[in-house]
Amino acid sequence: MTQAENPFLDIAAPWIAGLTPYVPGKPVSELERELGISNSVKLASNENPLGPGTKAREAIAACLAELGRYPDGGGFDLRRALADHHQISPAAITIGNGSNDVLDIIARAFLQPGVESVFSEYSFAVYPIATQSVGATARVAKARDFGHDLDAMSNLVNERTRVVWIANPNNPTGTWLAADELRSFIGSLPKTCVVVVDEAYTDYVSEPDFPDATHWVETFSNLIVLRTFSKAHGLAALRVGYGISDPRIADLLNRVRQPFNVNALAQAAAAAAIADRDHVRASVELNRAGMQQLTQAFEEMGLGYIPSVGNFVTLDLGRPAAPINDALLRLGVIVRPVGNYGMPNHLRISIGLEQENARFIAALKDVLAA
Amino acid sequence: MTQAENPFLDIAAPWIAGLTPYVPGKPVSELERELGISNSVKLASNENPLGPGTKAREAIAACLAELGRYPDGGGFDLRRALADHHQISPAAITIGNGSNDVLDIIARAFLQPGVESVFSEYSFAVYPIATQSVGATARVAKARDFGHDLDAMSNLVNERTRVVWIANPNNPTGTWLAADELRSFIGSLPKTCVVVVDEAYTDYVSEPDFPDATHWVETFSNLIVLRTFSKAHGLAALRVGYGISDPRIADLLNRVRQPFNVNALAQAAAAAAIADRDHVRASVELNRAGMQQLTQAFEEMGLGYIPSVGNFVTLDLGRPAAPINDALLRLGVIVRPVGNYGMPNHLRISIGLEQENARFIAALKDVLAA
Repeated sequence: MTQAENPFLDIAAPWIAGLTPYVPGKPVSELERELGISNSVKLASNENPLGPGTKAREAIAACLAELGRYPDGGGFDLRRALADHHQISPAAITIGNGSNDVLDIIARAFLQPGVESVFSEYSFAVYPIATQSVGATARVAKARDFGHDLDAMSNLVNERTRVVWIANPNNPTGTWLAADELRSFIGSLPKTCVVVVDEAYTDYVSEPDFPDATHWVETFSNLIVLRTFSKAHGLAALRVGYGISDPRIADLLNRVRQPFNVNALAQAAAAAAIADRDHVRASVELNRAGMQQLTQAFEEMGLGYIPSVGNFVTLDLGRPAAPINDALLRLGVIVRPVGNYGMPNHLRISIGLEQENARFIAALKDVLAA
Repeated sequence: MTQAENPFLDIAAPWIAGLTPYVPGKPVSELERELGISNSVKLASNENPLGPGTKAREAIAACLAELGRYPDGGGFDLRRALADHHQISPAAITIGNGSNDVLDIIARAFLQPGVESVFSEYSFAVYPIATQSVGATARVAKARDFGHDLDAMSNLVNERTRVVWIANPNNPTGTWLAADELRSFIGSLPKTCVVVVDEAYTDYVSEPDFPDATHWVETFSNLIVLRTFSKAHGLAALRVGYGISDPRIADLLNRVRQPFNVNALAQAAAAAAIADRDHVRASVELNRAGMQQLTQAFEEMGLGYIPSVGNFVTLDLGRPAAPINDALLRLGVIVRPVGNYGMPNHLRISIGLEQENARFIAALKDVLAA
């Protein structure tokens, strides 16, 4: 809807016009009905095909009798569980309705018209949206081999920069930054900006020089590390993520946070899930096997892909991916086109169960042969 | 934490300093441990003592297998169910993580530094917070008999006003506005502001001239009506509310909305609950009986209270309520002091089950006799 079509833009905050209206996707059930297919396989949203573990399921079941009650606005039990897990103070933690919510809270606390945020090309789609939604200016660094180019990002940092967003590993490319380079980049930033290291996919990574930035929060007071329960913990439906930072930054974030932003089941499930190392391990092992299954098939098929340490892999088709995506859909296989990331020839495939991955590979072979 | 104590305020958006840090309350279990009590009764948060109805519970159970999947970002099924219920277009609906989220989205879409919002004294605490959180200016009208004085509100509306917030019925007072006066107030407002009619407690009201403002959305293109599932539908734990407005306003709100703001269980439960008229009826009947039980006791005790049409009643103790609240707590009865609303002599009591109400009355008698 343009300004002419929507006269309410005249009284809205001016930056709202620059936000792309969300185009709701259809639920799988609707899509199946429209396409006349059934038993489709969804490898589109980097979800955990195992879902939550036993501990989280038990915690949820124990809460179902209390659904009429508001969640604990302070997240007391969840923050205590997270603090125990990370060996930090509960005062360092900001809980969110998914890590998306924490990103948004950070933007609202530190960004405003006239200041800037810096992030990389091909990085998570929410960084530009969160920046635009508060009227700040996005400065986008060119990527290097689809990954973050920290020198290019450094060059964009100036006295107006208030937030630097880094996804490690990065979505949708699966690329990653090693401990040394990331740490020295963070140390080089002025204290007039906060740096956000978004570790949504961290549990899947086994590279020895991959960092755990939560250990650096005491060193760098302007660092905020984000984690989510939507990936290796399998709780995407419930929406829970969190930030770890200097408590003085958490104080500001918690001023912006809505008290009941994380629902009661999510709090209970996450507090149980953080201690369920067995489930994370099983999820990571399944992912490793699935990654091998997919990349081996790509290599046999002579297809390029971006080496990934996440729970997804991004395939380079060398030609427009949209028609191939459409053909896959008609075969009941849902993956993620990433044209909106400036990658029109790529498709992002989330790692599923072995049989789901196999179904995707077979469908892709059919489509490419046609 | 003051500016001196928190140097990060120097790089935050300037209005963040004006947000009061959220002081997390303790969960009931913690409070009981600290006070050395057990079996406490909570009549503090205007919750539904029956919790959700059967239809919502069944819908939740059906979703538990899919917790690893992201919610439907467009709220397709929920918006369709709401549209059916209200006989409007799904395009008129904005779903929120509780109606608090929709309030916040409205503030982000229409408020910014240099513009104003108008609301009444003794009105819902989130209106000033949402206004401050985006750097806009709050203009607070004096109340009349603890209710909205629409003439006083009118006098505060000017060319900088972008949002007028009205709770009908109002929380924490339980007062209400009749159809004629509210409708003519809305019609008198300039089109340069939106007017929000927050109907969280509407289901509890039986007064014949109480309005359903959702019927006015087609007449007043600048009207947004808010509803919640946290009250009569008993789903406070899950966080789901929604706005109904002209689709062009909904378009702007949905640009600000985070796609996965309403979690999957909340969407499913709410879509089922909206059709469960039996449960709403049972909740309302329980509330009516409980209201009578409480107000009759107050009258017998010679205590003043504000006549309420909500699921709570606010007691006027005629002296500072804080010590009485503390004494009630030590007897295991949790109610809500409303000093933060400028009502230091009042206590808000949510209507509970018959035995919970009785326990409160007995405790209050003990405390006042001491």
